Amino acid sequence: MIEDRPQNNGESGAGTDEVQAALYLFPVPLSDSSRIADVLPEGNARLLRGIRHFLVENVRSARRFMKRVDPSIDVNLMSFTVLDEHTRPEDVARMLEPLENGEPMGVISEAGCPAVADPGADAVAVAQRKGLKVVPLVGPSSILMALMGSGFNGQSFAFNGYLPIEAGKRSAKLREMETRIRREGQTQIFIETPYRNNRLIAELVKSLPGQMRLCVATDITGRGENITTRALSQWGKTEYDYAKVPTIFLLF
Amino acid sequence: MIEDRPQNNGESGAGTDEVQAALYLFPVPLSDSSRIADVLPEGNARLLRGIRHFLVENVRSARRFMKRVDPSIDVNLMSFTVLDEHTRPEDVARMLEPLENGEPMGVISEAGCPAVADPGADAVAVAQRKGLKVVPLVGPSSILMALMGSGFNGQSFAFNGYLPIEAGKRSAKLREMETRIRREGQTQIFIETPYRNNRLIAELVKSLPGQMRLCVATDITGRGENITTRALSQWGKTEYDYAKVPTIFLLF
Repeated sequence: MIEDRPQNNGESGAGTDEVQAALYLFPVPLSDSSRIADVLPEGNARLLRGIRHFLVENVRSARRFMKRVDPSIDVNLMSFTVLDEHTRPEDVARMLEPLENGEPMGVISEAGCPAVADPGADAVAVAQRKGLKVVPLVGPSSILMALMGSGFNGQSFAFNGYLPIEAGKRSAKLREMETRIRREGQTQIFIETPYRNNRLIAELVKSLPGQMRLCVATDITGRGENITTRALSQWGKTEYDYAKVPTIFLLF
Repeated sequence: MIEDRPQNNGESGAGTDEVQAALYLFPVPLSDSSRIADVLPEGNARLLRGIRHFLVENVRSARRFMKRVDPSIDVNLMSFTVLDEHTRPEDVARMLEPLENGEPMGVISEAGCPAVADPGADAVAVAQRKGLKVVPLVGPSSILMALMGSGFNGQSFAFNGYLPIEAGKRSAKLREMETRIRREGQTQIFIETPYRNNRLIAELVKSLPGQMRLCVATDITGRGENITTRALSQWGKTEYDYAKVPTIFLLF
């Protein structure tokens, strides 16, 4: 379908709403309080206007996203297929039929970048297997922006998702992260269900060396954005309240 | 200087060129062939216009970046301080003096996101230590965009920087990555000096299991952008040429 290394094949592209057939991955703002012009390139809107078929984590929030990007978009002309954590992998291939027939498609998750700590990777994997073109677009990633703002090592880092809940596995994971910081100088990034954020910080203060540094990055791009790095011993003496706010944690 | 969790403190912000004092991290386009409007939010230009003091990896490319974002910017009014891999850590604190005096500052690296596989983390670390506000901005990251486009696990991933050059350490690193893919399901991301890209692919084909998948993501956001995932056994039977093009490698 798509050659290995497409040369400039004479497509007109830029400036028109004619969009080349590919699976476009659309990042979505992280916060309701950020301005679109501060978090998304204007070019993403042009692509959005040129695509009819979308795989979305949630139809309502995808429609809201489109309206926010461009109020003139008629969302009733779009076709939405839900792709979320309940989607059966064997159903994903069929969802890409429009793309196989030469029509561009979009992937939209609820916040941040599709396929990174969010659904979408399955659809990308199928597209790759079928030799279909995949095009990631620029937009906000709380993981990457937290790393930038932490001051920690950006030459080597790992994102671990959620920490395990079960006590034994959880402390084993903390020990593993501690080891990888010490031996490899690898920044460790993870997340927690927001209502447990405060408890997690207290737990880190209790179970890890006091000189280890913790960065807490909260409400990135939102009105309450705050990225604060301190030694764990300092966190233990500080008052904080991160309950209910989407937050990224980094250790180094 | 900055309170822990700044409430809305009545700053006017949006729409004017009055910029709050903070260390702003400006991503830079990855490719000369990408349109600014496709890779940077328009809001970044507004901030750029409101800042006078910059820490830059390279003065010439920083000036070119500014001119590309907004040809009306008078780069001769800007002050540039070089912050690169030769900067002594003890000199970084002094570079942040304008910010300590209440003036906003910017960090600009040569391509991609400051402080991620690029200089800048030292300045951020000092700012964090001094309690100065740090604000990462949205822009292209080849690492993140390669991950999005790979179809690999985005719930757990590690960026390893360059592989070691020395043969023993290099094969130990490959074995370690193989283990982390198998045991932890952790996507492994790394880079190579562009002129060695082709040799690296041949080496991976030779030394790792054939069913392991390799994604090669090249010239991201550029005219030659190509993100291709295949089993290593398939890569072994394919012709490719990635010499001289900035490329991200991912294994899963």
